[in-house]
Amino acid sequence: MVRWQPGTRERLQATAMQLFTEHGYDATTVVEIARTADVTERTFFRHFADKREVLFAGQDDFLAMFAVPIERAPADTAPFDLVRLALHAAGTYFDRDKRPFSRDRQAIIEANPALQERELGKLATLKIHLGALLRDRGVSEPAATIAAETAVTVFHLTFQQWIAPGEERSFEEIASERLDALASLVHPVR
Amino acid sequence: MVRWQPGTRERLQATAMQLFTEHGYDATTVVEIARTADVTERTFFRHFADKREVLFAGQDDFLAMFAVPIERAPADTAPFDLVRLALHAAGTYFDRDKRPFSRDRQAIIEANPALQERELGKLATLKIHLGALLRDRGVSEPAATIAAETAVTVFHLTFQQWIAPGEERSFEEIASERLDALASLVHPVR
Repeated sequence: MVRWQPGTRERLQATAMQLFTEHGYDATTVVEIARTADVTERTFFRHFADKREVLFAGQDDFLAMFAVPIERAPADTAPFDLVRLALHAAGTYFDRDKRPFSRDRQAIIEANPALQERELGKLATLKIHLGALLRDRGVSEPAATIAAETAVTVFHLTFQQWIAPGEERSFEEIASERLDALASLVHPVR
Repeated sequence: MVRWQPGTRERLQATAMQLFTEHGYDATTVVEIARTADVTERTFFRHFADKREVLFAGQDDFLAMFAVPIERAPADTAPFDLVRLALHAAGTYFDRDKRPFSRDRQAIIEANPALQERELGKLATLKIHLGALLRDRGVSEPAATIAAETAVTVFHLTFQQWIAPGEERSFEEIASERLDALASLVHPVR
């Protein structure tokens, strides 16, 4: 019986991603992932609830990455500054080392409508969480919902650009460019 | 054989909406819609490609409603003013008389994941069209995409509020409130 080994989770994830990319997500089974990674199926399920979770694990971390800087900001921080703080925190999460994984993951998701739907659900959950966080901080409606929707839109556009072929800039730099574009859009300098 | 009659299309639509609401969208057939509206199936298909089109007919009008005011605006109109013009034009399309239909339609769509996906697809198409229109007018990237995404977000939030139970204000009034909330968000008065 295989005991807990450091790095097993990462190895399972890397193996799964390779198989998804080579044979397609639907054609890849947990049995195959476990065998290729040289562990038992039971070990796979100790790390991931199912093969989909290889792509969607860490949703709590993903939500926390936006939530923590908002929760920790001084009480009088303006809502748009909270949005900026959250997006810059996302830049720490989506660091340079993570980009190849994110690119592979995106290609797998784009090839599969059910995974696309799951991914959209993740962004919808993020909108709801951010709206609730902002209301908790006293931001009124419709400002809280507008801010949450805007944050997720800018996040999504930034992420798409960050994983675009040939893109070298950091997540934070791309996010700043988009936030500045939004600021100029809404009150253009005449 | 039933000849063309004025109002047949509207009667088919009203009949279909009633059946969708009473028996569910999936359980309702074209045969049943035609029989209840007292026309032949062939007449139904002269007006709608299939039963889904009862809910999604007029997509071209929907896109044109946003596009026309943008296309007609003076060349030096700022992008955010183009967004305002498009949303105010939507207020003419979504007038008071249309609200009961829009509420029924929303309830049918929310009960059916495939229809929800079609509806999201409609908004995604709108984003793409608006982005292209703005680029055609010389708006550069990422501003054009940010403006298009923002316009669709504000449209969607406005529409949701407009059909909310008990809401009496006009589409235009709700849209203005949200655009103002966005402006205050991005450039807060301190």
